[in-house]
Amino acid sequence: MIKAGIIGATGYAGNEIVRLLLAHPEVEIVWYGSRSYIDQAYARIYQNFFRMVDAVCLDDNMTQLAEQADVIFTATPQGFCASMVNEDILSRVKIVDLSADFRIKDVNRYEEWYGIKHPSPQFIDEAVYGLCEINREDIKKARLIANPGCYPTCSTLSIYPLVKKGLIDPDTIIIDAKSGTSGAGRGAKVDNLFCEVNESIKPYGVATHRHTPEIEDQLGYACGQDVRISFTPHLVPMNRGILVTAYASLKEGVTKEQIRRAYEACYEKETFIRVLPEGVWPQTRWVEGSNYVDVNFAADPRTNRVIMMGAIDNLVKGAAGQAVQNMNLLFGFAEAEGLRQIPMMP
Amino acid sequence: MIKAGIIGATGYAGNEIVRLLLAHPEVEIVWYGSRSYIDQAYARIYQNFFRMVDAVCLDDNMTQLAEQADVIFTATPQGFCASMVNEDILSRVKIVDLSADFRIKDVNRYEEWYGIKHPSPQFIDEAVYGLCEINREDIKKARLIANPGCYPTCSTLSIYPLVKKGLIDPDTIIIDAKSGTSGAGRGAKVDNLFCEVNESIKPYGVATHRHTPEIEDQLGYACGQDVRISFTPHLVPMNRGILVTAYASLKEGVTKEQIRRAYEACYEKETFIRVLPEGVWPQTRWVEGSNYVDVNFAADPRTNRVIMMGAIDNLVKGAAGQAVQNMNLLFGFAEAEGLRQIPMMP
Amino acid sequence: MIKAGIIGATGYAGNEIVRLLLAHPEVEIVWYGSRSYIDQAYARIYQNFFRMVDAVCLDDNMTQLAEQADVIFTATPQGFCASMVNEDILSRVKIVDLSADFRIKDVNRYEEWYGIKHPSPQFIDEAVYGLCEINREDIKKARLIANPGCYPTCSTLSIYPLVKKGLIDPDTIIIDAKSGTSGAGRGAKVDNLFCEVNESIKPYGVATHRHTPEIEDQLGYACGQDVRISFTPHLVPMNRGILVTAYASLKEGVTKEQIRRAYEACYEKETFIRVLPEGVWPQTRWVEGSNYVDVNFAADPRTNRVIMMGAIDNLVKGAAGQAVQNMNLLFGFAEAEGLRQIPMMP
Amino acid sequence: MIKAGIIGATGYAGNEIVRLLLAHPEVEIVWYGSRSYIDQAYARIYQNFFRMVDAVCLDDNMTQLAEQADVIFTATPQGFCASMVNEDILSRVKIVDLSADFRIKDVNRYEEWYGIKHPSPQFIDEAVYGLCEINREDIKKARLIANPGCYPTCSTLSIYPLVKKGLIDPDTIIIDAKSGTSGAGRGAKVDNLFCEVNESIKPYGVATHRHTPEIEDQLGYACGQDVRISFTPHLVPMNRGILVTAYASLKEGVTKEQIRRAYEACYEKETFIRVLPEGVWPQTRWVEGSNYVDVNFAADPRTNRVIMMGAIDNLVKGAAGQAVQNMNLLFGFAEAEGLRQIPMMP
Repeated sequence: MIKAGIIGATGYAGNEIVRLLLAHPEVEIVWYGSRSYIDQAYARIYQNFFRMVDAVCLDDNMTQLAEQADVIFTATPQGFCASMVNEDILSRVKIVDLSADFRIKDVNRYEEWYGIKHPSPQFIDEAVYGLCEINREDIKKARLIANPGCYPTCSTLSIYPLVKKGLIDPDTIIIDAKSGTSGAGRGAKVDNLFCEVNESIKPYGVATHRHTPEIEDQLGYACGQDVRISFTPHLVPMNRGILVTAYASLKEGVTKEQIRRAYEACYEKETFIRVLPEGVWPQTRWVEGSNYVDVNFAADPRTNRVIMMGAIDNLVKGAAGQAVQNMNLLFGFAEAEGLRQIPMMP
Repeated sequence: MIKAGIIGATGYAGNEIVRLLLAHPEVEIVWYGSRSYIDQAYARIYQNFFRMVDAVCLDDNMTQLAEQADVIFTATPQGFCASMVNEDILSRVKIVDLSADFRIKDVNRYEEWYGIKHPSPQFIDEAVYGLCEINREDIKKARLIANPGCYPTCSTLSIYPLVKKGLIDPDTIIIDAKSGTSGAGRGAKVDNLFCEVNESIKPYGVATHRHTPEIEDQLGYACGQDVRISFTPHLVPMNRGILVTAYASLKEGVTKEQIRRAYEACYEKETFIRVLPEGVWPQTRWVEGSNYVDVNFAADPRTNRVIMMGAIDNLVKGAAGQAVQNMNLLFGFAEAEGLRQIPMMP
Repeated sequence: MIKAGIIGATGYAGNEIVRLLLAHPEVEIVWYGSRSYIDQAYARIYQNFFRMVDAVCLDDNMTQLAEQADVIFTATPQGFCASMVNEDILSRVKIVDLSADFRIKDVNRYEEWYGIKHPSPQFIDEAVYGLCEINREDIKKARLIANPGCYPTCSTLSIYPLVKKGLIDPDTIIIDAKSGTSGAGRGAKVDNLFCEVNESIKPYGVATHRHTPEIEDQLGYACGQDVRISFTPHLVPMNRGILVTAYASLKEGVTKEQIRRAYEACYEKETFIRVLPEGVWPQTRWVEGSNYVDVNFAADPRTNRVIMMGAIDNLVKGAAGQAVQNMNLLFGFAEAEGLRQIPMMP
Repeated sequence: MIKAGIIGATGYAGNEIVRLLLAHPEVEIVWYGSRSYIDQAYARIYQNFFRMVDAVCLDDNMTQLAEQADVIFTATPQGFCASMVNEDILSRVKIVDLSADFRIKDVNRYEEWYGIKHPSPQFIDEAVYGLCEINREDIKKARLIANPGCYPTCSTLSIYPLVKKGLIDPDTIIIDAKSGTSGAGRGAKVDNLFCEVNESIKPYGVATHRHTPEIEDQLGYACGQDVRISFTPHLVPMNRGILVTAYASLKEGVTKEQIRRAYEACYEKETFIRVLPEGVWPQTRWVEGSNYVDVNFAADPRTNRVIMMGAIDNLVKGAAGQAVQNMNLLFGFAEAEGLRQIPMMP
């Protein structure tokens, strides 16, 4: 039984970490951190936990928390974790950081895309990018996990096998992504009001979204060369779910069978990645509430392109679920422990 | 480890029974019955179960199923279970019937409200109304469970303590109920198309809905007299959830404190019923995906009425969850076994 | 051609007034008032008006506006209009106030329910309650119109004929109302975020909502006695629409035919009130985008109650549409001028 | 005043034609055709028209209708119009066909993509593709209009200026489209039930959707060469709206300014096409209920691609609105007559 602390426990990702950890047999939550709701009962903010959680919200004191916990989840804005972490803390606890602070290895690239100065670049190197299916062994030995972004998780896993096996031309990759509104967080902004989001779909961050370099880095590692993609996210009137539709040109002579074999070879042993049968496309509803990633592809001989598709629950595999999966790897638990929720539909 | 068969496994309630039983440590599903999808892979119809369920759909053969299973769930239209059940079947398996066939003790009343002749009235008497919190001991000894309707579950549990303790005038009870669309089933009807339901709310079955006598019966048993209610259901553009707002006149001199004590006395030992704190009203989102019932009340001295409110997930406590809870009681498992899903929000 | 100014033009009601007035042949908008967006282009905040409106947002200066306009619409929080209005302004322009400031004739009652001191009680008396179908003649002669609240409009019009004709017992009236989320306004509040509202329904303001005295007053005027009602509003995950389901006990011997005649007698000449055929219930989608009120009833001999139902678009007949209808009466235009939008579905 | 008949009046497009024509000063509807609802009152099926339309639904008899009407709208499945039309009918009435029957000039291509034999290829040549902004002059002289598909309307108008001016490489065009559910029609199918569509997004018709050749043809005409595109439609949980996000590689040296000038040159005189300001992306909510097309682009120097975006209301500009616009051109009415609805939001 380990002890976990959550900083940013009242955001949607934090709330989802709580949902998962309460059902995890090896973990006890000892700290519900939330600067905005200090001293308020956590179960008054998230009434789903009424009669399950008695705790009140505590401040965001990572140093104090490091003395009480074995693992800290930071579900906080960019810059927070990097400004708090230090060698002393890292020597005491494992950290799973759900922000982008340690995802980008090149600090200049981070600062350029995020528009803030990195507060602790000295830890970037040791941080491990927590995409479990790709970096499993490194994660097991890490102290500091950079939990991947929601779009990068879905995008990378949808495209990875074909880049890795050299079946597509990396320079032609275009990613058109669609996300439910929980990805926008729980901040009180006019743009996220019900009446602004409902009955509409919109693109945002066109050609400038900050998940772009993260996806490029991961695909670049897979193929051993720099990759530049077009990435366009869209806001969809639903609570949860990310769907990625990605396009790329096939290399000369690549067949449908080769593509399928590439997906299957990469993912056949993976608990959480489901390569769907031919002609069955991912839909976000089929993974809702679960840690699954559904992927598939269509090869189009007319255009010599492949359309790669993936679906996740952005709050589970795209945030809290992956964070717990990383924790499981860090502490030697079964990787799927606490993550066997079956997708709920409707 | 017991064996379960589901007749009507491709409806929304059937699908939810599957979700719950797959995670239940004491049960194996041996029969996915669905007349409409015979021989088709179940996981092609409900893709959430891809790689979890290999079975194909079977016919609705209750006799054959009774030889293979310990418990049968019938998630089928009115009249089906009653037309299939017989002494031989009942001597072999326990039946949890999610239809209305055995909910109404007075067969004339059943036939009048449902407009069909009851095919096996001889079993009505022994059937136990499976509202676990009220009829727990009888359920344990039963062979045939009449699993309550979704509206009656939420309505009865919201009102029961005050009727039982004699704090309200039963003749003044008015129930205004609101349901998500999964309650309307998975039949292909124009009225349930996305564009017909979305962005609208409507009443239906006004003064004629068939859950009316079921609620009246249960409230009548609680107070020992005939009860007549007004009941108006509404269709809400959401997938899951029932909210009940019920009104009644308080008996002379009844205080707010008495009302709260009545709720607490009735429900303090119940795992699945949560009496909310003063001033906190039930909302369907806080119970979504779980077997919880959230209830509360407002006493209004201006009108001398009490407003009683309750929220459930119609597919869980209102159907599949309660069916599993009944199964747990029938077989001596822990009552909450397989039902500890934490409400998921957003 | 008259000139109109709107104070609070960037709220949802203000935006809807703009939509209606832009299509009104007799009106020119000369002032888009919005304290929060001063100097910003109105069509940048409401992009639907791109290339239709060139104006920038102006301050909330009612005195200055009174010199430029013939009519002022105040779509502002409680207290604003009452604190600005004075004899000089009223001598220059007509005012249609969409707030509650002048709806309640008894200033003590206003102050009790709204919790603020009334800034200008001297104008309460002359203000006319702008429910056009009831107070048409008085409106024509007024200077200051108290535009009715959304819930009171739908509730009063649904119940009025039966109270007026003495067919129901006023003391038994219970109103269960359901509203789309635009009724909650455009303020940036966590409670109104998409992920908080979507996939849920909740009651609020139970037994304490401030529209209660307004409804009671109007029904009281209709029957000539004090009326006390139970009123429970609910938030529904849709943009627009209010549905009212109201209950009351019928007076001895009242027949279904009498009830229908009462509705028809009251409303047969009304352009905007549609008494639906027997057995056809109001649904909000059938009035969306229009100024219509759909009403109907079910008489229930089992309980001797009548269920009265009504549906409106809360932003049109419940706010902006009724405001324009009042303006038409004030200036002698055809009452339906600019209000002939046909409901849009889906 | 002309007389119009609608065949397929009870589908969503047919219903929208009714909404628009009822407000059109130059048209009277004389025929509400609907095979499924013959002899039923039209306003019982679309209750929004209660008290506006008294007519009952008639059969789909085009010959008889041609004797009574000046214009016929066919909002019917593929093959219907082509199987009914003949020289005699065309000599009596103008036809605006909302199906795909006459959109593809190459009959083999039509038969290949649609999988049916074309019943009257002899009329393909004279039919004019009714994309008003592109083919205005030809439309004015036509007898038979092939009203464009919803996706092709939005896709073509979003991309047209850049293809026309030769600023992008046509072979690199990728169109990722998202549609509200009304585009799927009003047929009673499980896939379109509320609970199947709500809270999910899915791709469909991947690399095989039948609007692909229509878009390719139109873009091909614009640049004078064959064009092959990737086109992926997605189903979004909302009633109305199409958003197109399209990608293409810029030709060597093309600047952002050139791109903007291309859009403005093409569309500056168009009533219904709004080129949005820099950095403001189309959203479907801003055009809902109207005939507008909002377009814009982002040039991405990192990838040397342009992202072209467009939004329409699929039932208005994508179907009924464009049909009425075509009718206006055919009969010499003002092109925007009856189409000045202001987008409604929220």
